Amino acid sequence: MAYKYQLTLNNLLRYINYVFGDVQIVHRPPHGADRRSTYGEEYRRILRLADGLRKLGIGPGDRVATLDWNTIWHWDLYWAVPGIGAALHTVNVRLAPEDIAYTINQAGDKALIYHRDFAQLVDKLRPHLKSVKLYIQISDGMGVVGKDPEIEDVIKSGEEKELPDLDENTVATVLYTSGTTGRPKGAYFTHRQLVLHTLSVALAAVGYRGLARNDCANIDGKPCTALYLVPMFHVHAWGLPWVYALMGWRQVMPGRFDYGHILRLIVEEEVKAMAGVPTILYMLVTHPDLPKYVEGIRRLAPIYIVGGAALPKELARKAADAGFVPRVGYGMTETAPVVSLGFFKPTEKLPEDLDKAYDLIVMTGLPNPLSEFAVVDENDKPVPRDCKTAGELALRAPWITPEYIGDPEKTKTAWRNGWFHTGDAAVWCPDGRIKIVDRLKDVIKSGGEWISSLQLEDLIMTHPAVGIAAVVGLPHEKWGERPVAFVVPKPGASVNPDEIIAHLQKFVDAGKIPKWWLPDKVMVVSDLPMTGTGKIDKKVLRDKYRDLLKQ
Amino acid sequence: MAYKYQLTLNNLLRYINYVFGDVQIVHRPPHGADRRSTYGEEYRRILRLADGLRKLGIGPGDRVATLDWNTIWHWDLYWAVPGIGAALHTVNVRLAPEDIAYTINQAGDKALIYHRDFAQLVDKLRPHLKSVKLYIQISDGMGVVGKDPEIEDVIKSGEEKELPDLDENTVATVLYTSGTTGRPKGAYFTHRQLVLHTLSVALAAVGYRGLARNDCANIDGKPCTALYLVPMFHVHAWGLPWVYALMGWRQVMPGRFDYGHILRLIVEEEVKAMAGVPTILYMLVTHPDLPKYVEGIRRLAPIYIVGGAALPKELARKAADAGFVPRVGYGMTETAPVVSLGFFKPTEKLPEDLDKAYDLIVMTGLPNPLSEFAVVDENDKPVPRDCKTAGELALRAPWITPEYIGDPEKTKTAWRNGWFHTGDAAVWCPDGRIKIVDRLKDVIKSGGEWISSLQLEDLIMTHPAVGIAAVVGLPHEKWGERPVAFVVPKPGASVNPDEIIAHLQKFVDAGKIPKWWLPDKVMVVSDLPMTGTGKIDKKVLRDKYRDLLKQ
Repeated sequence: MAYKYQLTLNNLLRYINYVFGDVQIVHRPPHGADRRSTYGEEYRRILRLADGLRKLGIGPGDRVATLDWNTIWHWDLYWAVPGIGAALHTVNVRLAPEDIAYTINQAGDKALIYHRDFAQLVDKLRPHLKSVKLYIQISDGMGVVGKDPEIEDVIKSGEEKELPDLDENTVATVLYTSGTTGRPKGAYFTHRQLVLHTLSVALAAVGYRGLARNDCANIDGKPCTALYLVPMFHVHAWGLPWVYALMGWRQVMPGRFDYGHILRLIVEEEVKAMAGVPTILYMLVTHPDLPKYVEGIRRLAPIYIVGGAALPKELARKAADAGFVPRVGYGMTETAPVVSLGFFKPTEKLPEDLDKAYDLIVMTGLPNPLSEFAVVDENDKPVPRDCKTAGELALRAPWITPEYIGDPEKTKTAWRNGWFHTGDAAVWCPDGRIKIVDRLKDVIKSGGEWISSLQLEDLIMTHPAVGIAAVVGLPHEKWGERPVAFVVPKPGASVNPDEIIAHLQKFVDAGKIPKWWLPDKVMVVSDLPMTGTGKIDKKVLRDKYRDLLKQ
Repeated sequence: MAYKYQLTLNNLLRYINYVFGDVQIVHRPPHGADRRSTYGEEYRRILRLADGLRKLGIGPGDRVATLDWNTIWHWDLYWAVPGIGAALHTVNVRLAPEDIAYTINQAGDKALIYHRDFAQLVDKLRPHLKSVKLYIQISDGMGVVGKDPEIEDVIKSGEEKELPDLDENTVATVLYTSGTTGRPKGAYFTHRQLVLHTLSVALAAVGYRGLARNDCANIDGKPCTALYLVPMFHVHAWGLPWVYALMGWRQVMPGRFDYGHILRLIVEEEVKAMAGVPTILYMLVTHPDLPKYVEGIRRLAPIYIVGGAALPKELARKAADAGFVPRVGYGMTETAPVVSLGFFKPTEKLPEDLDKAYDLIVMTGLPNPLSEFAVVDENDKPVPRDCKTAGELALRAPWITPEYIGDPEKTKTAWRNGWFHTGDAAVWCPDGRIKIVDRLKDVIKSGGEWISSLQLEDLIMTHPAVGIAAVVGLPHEKWGERPVAFVVPKPGASVNPDEIIAHLQKFVDAGKIPKWWLPDKVMVVSDLPMTGTGKIDKKVLRDKYRDLLKQ
């Protein structure tokens, strides 16, 4: 007779509407069709969107794909699709069209809801999508292209009905990792997992001050404003669409990616928090429009949480110069994704010395509530907590995907002895912090010893003429592998390989790295291959330069 | 193969040890045997205590009773007993001995762990406790009384073994409400319920600033310090033993209740947060030692969360004068207990006008994350959100007890149509806030209309000579019931019934209450009957004065 309260996004949304119904949400794309509403208004639109989708035949167990930027409609779909017991499959628009078709077919998506910017792509895909019965377009105020129904009409067709009570173990989302090897791998998440992830990240962000210190009070009529940088088509936008809502923060959706527009939004919308990969931060702090906005950014001092790849210390410094307050989070597609937000312990003081402070800030840090870290050797035994011995980072948390869709082998490799193995090489420190030193597959194995490609890249990027750097291990007859550095100079700058080696030699002399870590070769290049999620694609480098060190 | 992460106190504790292991816990009873340790040290003691209890035959499914003050051992038992799959039954030491025996027998407790202050009581109870096989004494550094083993020896006997993985639906605690009618009623809570309660309260407290605004940062080497006032034998001490730990706050346990000692601790231990019933707050702000500490308290400006009964506006003002920052929470035994922490919406400004600010502060306010409010009429239909129409407060949350132990009738009355009915009369406001106007059973029904006894008490207590007041409805031939006020003057002050009526008449003249709310009689008394949890026992008043208004 007692009500069995389920941990569902539906219950979360009803709560958010009740308490934060008058907090603003801003949709402000670069082309200018602004839309300002509130959580309360969007709540009612979500109810109608959910009902409209139901009327079009979408129901429990179905899967719905999206191809969209960071728009208000995407945010609505984050609630409406799971809300009716269907699963939301946010398709990474940066995947190759062939891979997009593959993931939609493997997920068995029944509907595809796409932004008009992707109308051409969708037309190309259409003949290959076997399961999709329904196409809906998000015209984003620019007029419909083609013949598919528009999402606003679906919203109009629906009634404002309460979302159903769902079992918390209902699948809510399907995601694909854009791994650098083979086809994208599928993972899925239940309502329970996403609700617990949301609670944990919110507590770490505002309770443990992982995002804000004292500067984003979110009280006394001043809601804290967050801007979306992580694309919503990428790992639940790190769960932030739900997290920001549960924190009652004002949200700004920037639409299609445009760095100049983003700089403008930060200042004009008084943004106090953002999160994104280091590449985006790099693009912002090196953007030609920065000088126009830098004073405003410095005044706001917005937090910028870096995740998805390591934050180079040099970039942290550059970001701080431009007024951003850099912080670090950690996670991966399989972990929903956030398991760490780089907060400080109550007993810790942030070092006065900026260099030492950055040493701490760029670490992956401490686990968020309900998540648990271990760094283990190849026999799954914990490595010493000495901040030196590298092992593989293993995790536990209530929100890790239980399996890779249709890939029991990969599931078995990842889930061993009750721990999820991340494939990240890390060291474990006495205070419990961990620091990722590399992807296991990117670690360079030279003469049986490990060289961290990340650490070398970090040091190379402290050279004033270097924009980006990548270090990979290439096959070597004697040592197995030896490091080779690929260096992209800053716009307008130039650099030669000898300068890079001389620069690294200084760190050898200072005892920061051993001499045998010095790359065998430095290649100056104009750009680096990127994956669909904006990370450097080291696999392409390794393949292309496979024979570089061979005699 | 994936690890099925369970929401258990064991997983929570391991997390707390990992991240907050170096935060201090202080045990500082009035008799002076201080003990200062850390979460990490207590974690290891808890593991040994759990193992020691196991060795004495306590295991999964068993129930363990405690009779203890707010001590470090009680805190350890909050984790150790549920940790081995047994249920902790914290016995309210203020219940009548007969009721204590009744609850221990009904719960079927296998062990009784008691503070030496209760050694005599336990000797009296012993012959009547049928299920108890094991007695353990907490001697609190004062030497063992009698022949039972001491808890420190149990700790010494145990090994530092990891706590087991438990199913999250394992019962973790058993509680009895000290209702004002009939025998105490039993409720129980699972690990899952307590973990979700902890997450929700922590997020409301620090994320929504329900406890602190900007003044308890808990960073940069300055852990926020909380002092226990709610007894740990009373409704999980409102869940705070787990909540403070998950927030990483420094904790101070004051041992046996002593108001002068508590004032000293606030200042000497630099306490920034407390929670307790209004009676305790009243005792503190009227204590003869207050002048000695008031300057220190004003400097610290500690938050004082009132719960368990309504906070009279006049007491809020007195507390603010003494340096406390009053806030309000709401809950009851059946709800674990906290469902509201009186926070503000991000879009709301606290009114500059202090009187209006207190109007908001003393309200029960907005629901905490994952809890849901409704105010319903006798047909379970929502009342209008007009801040005027009274109904019964109904709740949903993942942590409400599923039933009353052995009382299906009472369970059926409380759990109806998917909502838990609190028995509290409340009004619902347009902003979603609710305000408790009375216990349903304390509401005075005069000529078919409701009179709020709470509101009358609140107004009577604004009279400068009044210490405490209680208003009850007594049988009346014509009107059914009519209000009668019982008034305790402040120490050293005196007051007569006519003055009270004249005082209330001013509020009638100002339109604050209708004329027919004026009490038929005012009785000046030297004290009021109290329940085991320090609330005024209106049932005793109603019984004793049953015939007062009869001709």
